[in-house]
Amino acid sequence: MKKALVVLSGGQDSTTCLFWAIEKFGRENVCAVGFDYGQRHGRELMCAEEICRGEGIGYEIIKTPIISELSANALTRSDIPVDEAKPDGEPPNTLVEGRNLLFLSYAAIYAKTHGMTEIVTGVCETDFSGYPDCRDIFVKSLNVTINLAMDHPFVIHTPLMWLDKSQTWELADKLGVMDIIRDKTLTCYNGVKGDGCGHCPACFLRKRGYDEYMERKKCTK
Amino acid sequence: MKKALVVLSGGQDSTTCLFWAIEKFGRENVCAVGFDYGQRHGRELMCAEEICRGEGIGYEIIKTPIISELSANALTRSDIPVDEAKPDGEPPNTLVEGRNLLFLSYAAIYAKTHGMTEIVTGVCETDFSGYPDCRDIFVKSLNVTINLAMDHPFVIHTPLMWLDKSQTWELADKLGVMDIIRDKTLTCYNGVKGDGCGHCPACFLRKRGYDEYMERKKCTK
Repeated sequence: MKKALVVLSGGQDSTTCLFWAIEKFGRENVCAVGFDYGQRHGRELMCAEEICRGEGIGYEIIKTPIISELSANALTRSDIPVDEAKPDGEPPNTLVEGRNLLFLSYAAIYAKTHGMTEIVTGVCETDFSGYPDCRDIFVKSLNVTINLAMDHPFVIHTPLMWLDKSQTWELADKLGVMDIIRDKTLTCYNGVKGDGCGHCPACFLRKRGYDEYMERKKCTK
Repeated sequence: MKKALVVLSGGQDSTTCLFWAIEKFGRENVCAVGFDYGQRHGRELMCAEEICRGEGIGYEIIKTPIISELSANALTRSDIPVDEAKPDGEPPNTLVEGRNLLFLSYAAIYAKTHGMTEIVTGVCETDFSGYPDCRDIFVKSLNVTINLAMDHPFVIHTPLMWLDKSQTWELADKLGVMDIIRDKTLTCYNGVKGDGCGHCPACFLRKRGYDEYMERKKCTK
């Protein structure tokens, strides 16, 4: 059986991917890593840890302060406020340059070192909000690159790539983990677990998706 | 004029690339970075620093302890001796998994953050000794990946890709820097500057290339 490594931040998306991986590969074949890069809300990783503990999944946090040293922005520097409305045509100031490039590269090295080939990530092109390293074509290109870099048959899985937020909620529902996702994950830019602060861009997207899915579910009953 | 970032370890190859970049892009358009990943001979970086100081080139050392944490091997762990003869068909135990993947990714983030597009690296397929991330196809794939990751027109230059060690010496000679390369760089796995310890694999390759080039030069005079 193939062994899978989930890149788990403790947010809605990556946590949904964790349960997707458990269903696909079997609980005993899944483990997870998170990255501590000095992000504004380290509390996300505590959520991830708590969820993994509850599920009996191994979770390791890897310290990567270099990510915030290389690129100054609102998620890694407490002196830069998060823009709640972003300028048209520009990436948001929560952009950490090359973040997924590094996360997935670290995950690949970790996976090979631990005898795993499957890497699961929650990156999603649908509501990518101007982050170029959330695009499908980037992930596919990186998949080729890491195979070549380490001569290892990595497969990067992106179960959320083409889902919108309401479909991600739907997937959580199908996996039977709506409550865990709603109550135990942290997506909010202001570090508030579960329903969040209610006014940052991440909370807005999360709530809108939830409401849409609930509406759809009610109508199809 | 384009601005270039040289990935400079202080060894023969990357130092030759530094002078190649100075000739190609102009001294005022070149700067360099090195990576301190807890390698056995941090003295390499001191060589790089000294060379850059002498040339008036900006040099920054970026600390990346994560590289040795993710992958245990003879270059990063003093308790693992360097194999002087490597088992057939296996990569040498000086392999640091994904090292060039990370170095070039960091360099790309640094380059973009500092308004540069050109990245120069000394990786070389000719005597790649089993390191998959020294292959041309890996570097080309990574070039596409970093462009996609950051939406930035990076160009990775690999002036040594198809040269053997004697041709790298020839290039240094053409650039007028034979003395600097011979005396001020450090390639030796045992941390001895210039001519090195004389018996590790890196010293062997360096000396053989030097002798071959000197022989060729004598014959064509």
